[in-house]
Amino acid sequence: MQGHLADGLVEVGPNGRERYYDSRGYGRPRGDGVVLDPIEAAHLLYRGDLDAVDGAGLSKFLADNDGIVAPFLVYKDLRQRGFYVSPAREGWVAEPSGIDLVTHPRGDGPWDETVEYRVRVVGERASVSFASLGDAVLAVVDEESELTYLETDRPDIDGQSHLDALPNVEGDLLGDRVICWSPPVVLYERGFYGQPLDRDDDAVQLSLLEAAYLAERGILSVQGGTNAIEARGRSVEGDRFDRRLTVYRTLRKRGVVPKTGFKFGADFRTYETVEHVDDLGHSELLVRVLDADAERSPRDIALDVRLAHGVRKRMIFALVGDDSVEWLSVGRLTP
Amino acid sequence: MQGHLADGLVEVGPNGRERYYDSRGYGRPRGDGVVLDPIEAAHLLYRGDLDAVDGAGLSKFLADNDGIVAPFLVYKDLRQRGFYVSPAREGWVAEPSGIDLVTHPRGDGPWDETVEYRVRVVGERASVSFASLGDAVLAVVDEESELTYLETDRPDIDGQSHLDALPNVEGDLLGDRVICWSPPVVLYERGFYGQPLDRDDDAVQLSLLEAAYLAERGILSVQGGTNAIEARGRSVEGDRFDRRLTVYRTLRKRGVVPKTGFKFGADFRTYETVEHVDDLGHSELLVRVLDADAERSPRDIALDVRLAHGVRKRMIFALVGDDSVEWLSVGRLTP
Repeated sequence: MQGHLADGLVEVGPNGRERYYDSRGYGRPRGDGVVLDPIEAAHLLYRGDLDAVDGAGLSKFLADNDGIVAPFLVYKDLRQRGFYVSPAREGWVAEPSGIDLVTHPRGDGPWDETVEYRVRVVGERASVSFASLGDAVLAVVDEESELTYLETDRPDIDGQSHLDALPNVEGDLLGDRVICWSPPVVLYERGFYGQPLDRDDDAVQLSLLEAAYLAERGILSVQGGTNAIEARGRSVEGDRFDRRLTVYRTLRKRGVVPKTGFKFGADFRTYETVEHVDDLGHSELLVRVLDADAERSPRDIALDVRLAHGVRKRMIFALVGDDSVEWLSVGRLTP
Repeated sequence: MQGHLADGLVEVGPNGRERYYDSRGYGRPRGDGVVLDPIEAAHLLYRGDLDAVDGAGLSKFLADNDGIVAPFLVYKDLRQRGFYVSPAREGWVAEPSGIDLVTHPRGDGPWDETVEYRVRVVGERASVSFASLGDAVLAVVDEESELTYLETDRPDIDGQSHLDALPNVEGDLLGDRVICWSPPVVLYERGFYGQPLDRDDDAVQLSLLEAAYLAERGILSVQGGTNAIEARGRSVEGDRFDRRLTVYRTLRKRGVVPKTGFKFGADFRTYETVEHVDDLGHSELLVRVLDADAERSPRDIALDVRLAHGVRKRMIFALVGDDSVEWLSVGRLTP
C-alpha cells in the first residue's frame, strides 16, 4: 500500500483502517482510511507493511524527515517490547505537550486511552530542564543510537530521625570546618553531627553545613556566630553553599540525616532512621542539589543514576527555588 | 617542651634533635635542636609530645594558623598508616613545587631521601588543573574532613585492534547518525564500527565520530563528505566534537577501539583487542575527553573514578592540546 504525506500526516486509504488501526494500533481512523504520524509511517516502511510514501522507501523517507529518526528508533524499540505506542499529537493523546510518545499498557491499544509511560525522546547531548521532569520517561538516544530509559518522579522525602533537644556546644571555626574540642556525646552518637577527629578522641569536626544549621538553631556557639560560618561557606562555594544549606535544613526538619555524598560525587547521602551511630543502616538516597532552573545533559544525569544504582541508593535531585525545595527522583527503567 | 615560631618554622631546642628528628622523623636538625614545619608542630601538640608553641596549645595554634588544618589532617592520617612524612619545603624534599607532603616508604625516614608518594592536599570543592597532575597523589579532604586518596599517572595507551583494509561503504547522514543500509559485514563484525539497526537486519548505524573517521580515511561515502558529518557534529556539541574526534582518531590509530561511554557518563569505553564482535572482551578503559587547560573539582573527579572502579575499568582523562593528546589516569589509592 502507498501513503501520501499531507499536513504533517501520512494518509493511507481506503480500507487502511482495519489493516493498520483496528488490528495493530497504528494511526487514527479517518473514514475507512487511516492517518499516520510520520514516525508510524517510518515503522511500517521499515517492517515492509507499507510500500512507499509518495514514492519514497524507508531510507528516502527518513532522509527527507530526519527529525523523526530518533523518535522512530524509540518507537521501534517500544513496539518490539510488546507495546502499542501513540505519537503524542494534539487530539491523539491527553496532554501531549513535552512528550513525543505515549506507551499504552501491554494488552491495551490507542482505543483504550490508557497510559503506561509518557515518553520524551532526547539525544544524550541535549540540555534537559529539571523543572520539566517528574511525569515523563526520558528515552535517551546515545551517540551510537542505543537507548536508555530513565523514569522520573516527584517523591515525598521523609524520615524518623528526630532528636528533641541537644545541649549547647562550643566550637572553633578552622578553615572549612568547625572543631568542637569537648562536645556532648549525643552530638555525634545520637544526632550524627560531625565526625570524631580520631577514634580515641572526644573532639568532633563539623562540616560548615552542620555547623551553620546548629548555630542557627542556637545550639552551637562559634566566634562570629552563624554569619561567620555562612561567610566561610560562601567564600568556598558561593551561592551554592546557600542552596546546599537550604536542602540540609529541609532534610533535617523532615527527620532525614544528610551526610556528605563526596565519595559518590553527590552533595549528600541520607539516612532515614538514625538512633545511634553504632547502629547505622545503609544510607538510602544520594542527593544532588541544583538550582530550580538547572539544566543538564542526559549524559550527566545518567552518570548520577548509574552510580546511585551501583551502590543501591536512589538518586534524588533537590531543586531549590526561592523558598521551597522540590524533590525529583530519576531511576533506570526497563519498559 | 616548648616551641617558638620564627620565619614560618617552629624552633625546638636544645636537645630536640634526638627526641624529634633522630627517633621519629619530625622536622630537620639545626645544631642540637630541630626546626619543625607548623604541620609537624600541630601533630606533636595533638599527640601531647610538645607542650605549646609560644604559649599556644593545639586549638589556639590551629586557630592562629588555620591554613594548615587540612594538611594537618592528611599528615596525621599518613602517620597513623605508619609512614614518616616530610612537609614539602624547599631544601627538605626534592621538587617541592605543587605538593604539600612527601611520604617516605615504610621503614624509611627523611634521612633516606626516598619517596613513596608525593602528596597534594586539596579541598573537595577546590579547582584542580589536569595539566598539573600525573606525578602527585591527591589527598582530598571532603567537607566532613574525611580523606580520599587519588593516584595520578601518565600512562601509554595502546592496543592490538588493527584492521588492515576495509571495503568502501555508502551511508545516509540522518540526524545525529549515519545509516549504512547494506554495509560489508566486516565493518561491524571485525571493525566494530557502528551497531546494527536491528538484530535481524543488515543496516548499521554509525555514530558521527565513527562516520567522520571512516569518511576522512576514504572508506565511507556520504553526501557532502567528511565536512557534512563534522558540521553536523559541531552543530550538536561545538568544539567538543573536534576534541572527541581527535581522541577517537588517536585511539583507533593506536589499535584501541573506542565505543560510546554514555552508559557510564564518559565519552568512551575502549577495547584493546577486537577480533570479532561475537568474541568481545570486557572493555578496559573509560575515557573522558577534556581540553588540555581543563579544571575540575575533586568531587567531579571522584565521581568518575568511583564509577570506573565500580565497573572494573580504569579511568582515563584524554587531555587534548593543539596537536597532541595526553593521557592521564586517576585511580583510588589506599596508602
